[in-house]
Amino acid sequence: MSAQGAPGRAAEDAPHRSFFRSRWVEPPSGVEELDPAQLAPGFRAGGVACGLKGGETDVGVLVCDDEAVRSALALTANASAAAPVRLCREECDHGSIRAVAVNSGNANAATGEQGYRDAAGMRDAAAEALGLEPASVAVAETGTIGVPLEAELVIPAVSEAAGAVSERGGAEFTRSIMTTDQGPKCCTVRAGGVTLSAQAKGAGMIEPGFATMLCFVQTDALIDDADSDLRAALAGSMERITVDGQMSTNDTVLLQATGASGEPLPGGLLEAVLLQLALEIAADGEGATRVGRIEVCEARDRDEAERVARAIGNSPLVKTALFGRDPNWGRISQAAGQALAGEELEELGPDRIDATELADDTAEPELSVRLGRGEASTHLYFSDLTYDYVRINAEYTT
Amino acid sequence: MSAQGAPGRAAEDAPHRSFFRSRWVEPPSGVEELDPAQLAPGFRAGGVACGLKGGETDVGVLVCDDEAVRSALALTANASAAAPVRLCREECDHGSIRAVAVNSGNANAATGEQGYRDAAGMRDAAAEALGLEPASVAVAETGTIGVPLEAELVIPAVSEAAGAVSERGGAEFTRSIMTTDQGPKCCTVRAGGVTLSAQAKGAGMIEPGFATMLCFVQTDALIDDADSDLRAALAGSMERITVDGQMSTNDTVLLQATGASGEPLPGGLLEAVLLQLALEIAADGEGATRVGRIEVCEARDRDEAERVARAIGNSPLVKTALFGRDPNWGRISQAAGQALAGEELEELGPDRIDATELADDTAEPELSVRLGRGEASTHLYFSDLTYDYVRINAEYTT
Repeated sequence: MSAQGAPGRAAEDAPHRSFFRSRWVEPPSGVEELDPAQLAPGFRAGGVACGLKGGETDVGVLVCDDEAVRSALALTANASAAAPVRLCREECDHGSIRAVAVNSGNANAATGEQGYRDAAGMRDAAAEALGLEPASVAVAETGTIGVPLEAELVIPAVSEAAGAVSERGGAEFTRSIMTTDQGPKCCTVRAGGVTLSAQAKGAGMIEPGFATMLCFVQTDALIDDADSDLRAALAGSMERITVDGQMSTNDTVLLQATGASGEPLPGGLLEAVLLQLALEIAADGEGATRVGRIEVCEARDRDEAERVARAIGNSPLVKTALFGRDPNWGRISQAAGQALAGEELEELGPDRIDATELADDTAEPELSVRLGRGEASTHLYFSDLTYDYVRINAEYTT
Repeated sequence: MSAQGAPGRAAEDAPHRSFFRSRWVEPPSGVEELDPAQLAPGFRAGGVACGLKGGETDVGVLVCDDEAVRSALALTANASAAAPVRLCREECDHGSIRAVAVNSGNANAATGEQGYRDAAGMRDAAAEALGLEPASVAVAETGTIGVPLEAELVIPAVSEAAGAVSERGGAEFTRSIMTTDQGPKCCTVRAGGVTLSAQAKGAGMIEPGFATMLCFVQTDALIDDADSDLRAALAGSMERITVDGQMSTNDTVLLQATGASGEPLPGGLLEAVLLQLALEIAADGEGATRVGRIEVCEARDRDEAERVARAIGNSPLVKTALFGRDPNWGRISQAAGQALAGEELEELGPDRIDATELADDTAEPELSVRLGRGEASTHLYFSDLTYDYVRINAEYTT
């Protein structure tokens, strides 16, 4: 994870890599990138436009044709969780999810009991069209908070999308979850005899505990414990990014594995895919132009390192310095000091803080701070704070 | 604290009030506003330009001529505290501070042992010029972090300023502490037979625990317990504002009281002055155009109310909605849910959140949220997030 990683982004080193392009992502050797429209074997998906996003694809369905699917679902911890998150929490059989129905343009959050009924209506429409048990269908939604869902548009569209799923529906499904995203975030990769496809979206309201909006991963790999594999991969990817420090009401990640290939997931593949997607979310953070990586070392424990990293990555002063290409280590010192308020701390000067890459042309600068208190460390990826973040969020209206 | 307070800002209601102008400040009845250049009896101050701020007044001294002064000093809890804060913490007799030496343009923070010696040099120069014990002289500095102090300019200027203090030096002293402030923040008021003068500065890096940069208060009132009076007044004023959630390395508030009037401080006067100054700091928050007041009710306890209020007041999504005049209660619901992550919360919809004043023309909109969990409440004042915040902080370079 040092500067030597940077050349890895150059085309001559890895000409076949259009997805794995961050200096911070190390996919397993021999990984092959396929057309992201083509889903992993055993999966089909599709999307349609119902009118929530002015004619763009806004409703999608993804289904696994294998009854033996194993799955894991990670949901936001936000206490104001959206209706689909509450529905998944309360009524889904997390370990054997066959399908998911999604929409963008409306998050169906803070929409009361009617919102919950609408999410259930989406699930039921997908279950009926696909011939599945309702408990094996998840629902995920993203978009504006606090606006009643136009269920009379969305629910028939779910049925329509479910009737038109195909093995090459990955791209259309990805479009059905995009909101302020500048472009699609998806991939299909092969390594070690298995195929893995993934689709994600997210640009704002991105932060802790679980830092994405929506992400779906399908594979034909054999997975023993989907939940533990997913949690471990998320811990090193989606949970290590922040755009604006705002935990979403709708965060959802779904991993589905059929096992049909008979091979296990190559070590590091799931984490590499999720980390590249996480970095794309951070890079596509509303108005963002750069993503920084802050390494916090020599903390007393992991929790302390985490508090310091979050304080730095979410400091609007550090984020504007990242935008302004200002190697302002003083602001890093201030933010670290705030995270450790009331404690004794050896002075954090330029001997302990490296912020020089802030001034470089790189889109992915690396920063570090050594606290001199212990041996724990962590890192966090964070986007910059720009004029466009203000424009997007001051003009975006309920 | 309801909307009825708003007309109090109109000139016809209180033609003599140019200082107490917020709808949220209720000074004691009969309070009289004087020229803020004129300090409370027994105090003198002045300022000079030494070159840190391009020819503007940047070094100041304030002194109490009464040996019987009682004082209280509140300092930032930031673990990366600046040299002057560490000097005050370690070497000042907090209860009997006679004078303070200040400069703006350089915070003398993260400047190592040399920075500490420079702050001590400022103190010694003031003490010598004024004929005082070093332990009775405080030092406060504000400006850029991490740049060595040009002590060869500042220390002689402290001596010069100390030799030119006058009873009408309040305005010049205020200028000596300004950085990105749009204008001076100071007052001299009379009530109940006592006079109180105060000077403050602050525009960015404003938040918790102790939300100001520098503030100095002088009075001839009788004060028994200066420290407890100051802490109580700060709790309702400076500690209730946030601009960008960033705790400063240099926060300092000094209260000095001679007792020469023989009268106690009228109830509420100190808090009203500090609250008006705090609101001016929030209103002058870097790039700010509006200050909102969020009231958090029905929390389980004060700490929970505080966490929710800080999450809302520091949410860049809520702050851009305040700027964009967007009555976006969904973002308030999201931020409250983040503060209570992992807990059970009744859905926060428009029946529990009042954000309507966000859309009004008022510069001081009031918002509220009822959590429905208990009986504790708190409130917080917060500025909006604007293009100019980004401009000021992306262009401001170490």
